[in-house]
Amino acid sequence: MRRALATTSPHAEPPLAVVATYRVLFADCDPMRVVYYANYLRLFEIGRAELFRGLGYPFRAYVAQGVYLAVVGVRCHYRRPAHYDDELAIRAGIAELGRARMTVAYAIDRGDERIADGATEHCVVDDAGRPQRLPTAFRAALRAAGLLPAAP
Amino acid sequence: MRRALATTSPHAEPPLAVVATYRVLFADCDPMRVVYYANYLRLFEIGRAELFRGLGYPFRAYVAQGVYLAVVGVRCHYRRPAHYDDELAIRAGIAELGRARMTVAYAIDRGDERIADGATEHCVVDDAGRPQRLPTAFRAALRAAGLLPAAP
Amino acid sequence: MRRALATTSPHAEPPLAVVATYRVLFADCDPMRVVYYANYLRLFEIGRAELFRGLGYPFRAYVAQGVYLAVVGVRCHYRRPAHYDDELAIRAGIAELGRARMTVAYAIDRGDERIADGATEHCVVDDAGRPQRLPTAFRAALRAAGLLPAAP
Amino acid sequence: MRRALATTSPHAEPPLAVVATYRVLFADCDPMRVVYYANYLRLFEIGRAELFRGLGYPFRAYVAQGVYLAVVGVRCHYRRPAHYDDELAIRAGIAELGRARMTVAYAIDRGDERIADGATEHCVVDDAGRPQRLPTAFRAALRAAGLLPAAP
Repeated sequence: MRRALATTSPHAEPPLAVVATYRVLFADCDPMRVVYYANYLRLFEIGRAELFRGLGYPFRAYVAQGVYLAVVGVRCHYRRPAHYDDELAIRAGIAELGRARMTVAYAIDRGDERIADGATEHCVVDDAGRPQRLPTAFRAALRAAGLLPAAP
Repeated sequence: MRRALATTSPHAEPPLAVVATYRVLFADCDPMRVVYYANYLRLFEIGRAELFRGLGYPFRAYVAQGVYLAVVGVRCHYRRPAHYDDELAIRAGIAELGRARMTVAYAIDRGDERIADGATEHCVVDDAGRPQRLPTAFRAALRAAGLLPAAP
Repeated sequence: MRRALATTSPHAEPPLAVVATYRVLFADCDPMRVVYYANYLRLFEIGRAELFRGLGYPFRAYVAQGVYLAVVGVRCHYRRPAHYDDELAIRAGIAELGRARMTVAYAIDRGDERIADGATEHCVVDDAGRPQRLPTAFRAALRAAGLLPAAP
Repeated sequence: MRRALATTSPHAEPPLAVVATYRVLFADCDPMRVVYYANYLRLFEIGRAELFRGLGYPFRAYVAQGVYLAVVGVRCHYRRPAHYDDELAIRAGIAELGRARMTVAYAIDRGDERIADGATEHCVVDDAGRPQRLPTAFRAALRAAGLLPAAP
């Protein structure tokens, strides 16, 4: 289990560009006065939405076609607590890219401090939940943007 | 990364008792009409709260003393989508227990189907975020309940 | 504005039966260590879902047909704070019933204490958002259950 | 009830400046593929936080002193649905100001369309929930900014 939650990876860390900033709300915090652990997954959603928007592939266009990026797995490590009204930087990048699967990596920073990091693993599905191949144009856009992870 | 998200573990799987049931709300679902991925972490919270309540260690007593079970890591695998109004069984158990750290494992089922599973890693902290040892009485209660994981 | 938020009403208060109980999570609370104000609207959702389930009209059957109870308005008054792990009783009842509109009233109690109360106003819509009439069978079920508000 | 949810008001509408924009997430939407009704109250929180920050009174400074703006009531009217990835403008202004109470009004727009509007009623409380007077400097700042509602 500890190994399963480890951050070491056989792959080189992908480049994680700042794709958005986020101001912490009361709504995000819990009685410990820190951001509730599940709410980092909202920040991850913002991260991948803005990463793909920046690549010219906003999810909205896919959703309009009934295509979704289903989440098959997530992990998050909490390094330091974030508090009410903190301004957080959301970093995101592609960590792995397969034929029908993709892993997106994230880091949440407050200034120079790492608050949290993690990853989501996705597969593309249609409206009925059936798996789809990643569009080749999307793969080409990632390559053009230098966002493809190095081959292992 | 794929390895980091893997479900295989060097430790034997802990016993995961059903500790609560949950009825899926509109509030829990997203435009794919399935439970939003972050909301499973709410179900995990219900799982560990009810696991500890069942052991005679409700979190409330600790919170009243300014002691919290901080989350240092989480992972979740999504096996099948859950839908509006589904009745889900929440299973939880202790997967690892150290001096100041603990891993809780979860499974979310709908009837015979596995919907999701995962784990949270915790350390005990005081109101100021300082690490605390796990109370020995708590460890004894786990042992008495047969909930301690087998030594590796 | 104050008048618009007033709880006095030209109509008699409807009977508000306890339809569910709810245990407050960390996820529900904010840094004031009380339930975050938006989360009462989740409790209202539980309230109307269980009210209708109890009448033999679970929303799920409607959702499967592409019919939804859209919310056109909500109000909530916060009487006393609710805290982590509180067990709350959710009360709900029909406050007004028109041809295509309906108002559901709610109260959230902790033992003898009133924590919050409010109401949601709804209209029935189809999958495309077009208004629909309330089914006559539903109206009959409400009347049979003694849940129709007295005529003004 | 219908009257209680009415938007007409004996007071002139306050000026509602755009104080923030918000991009709708998957996390915000429900199976009707519209923003879930409770999530507008998050947008209201953003609205009042940014309104007060713009006045030079960020909540954070108060929270650090153990002073909070408790919510005693809320109302919201849903005019049109908002969808995934919509960019919403959040408007906010002071609707009423008493000695220890304040009403903040909001509107949520998408371009020229009104999506929702509403109000929250607040009182200032300390860490223990005891009511406090609104600071006079705060009142002066509102007056200087032209944000005080006209006397009735």
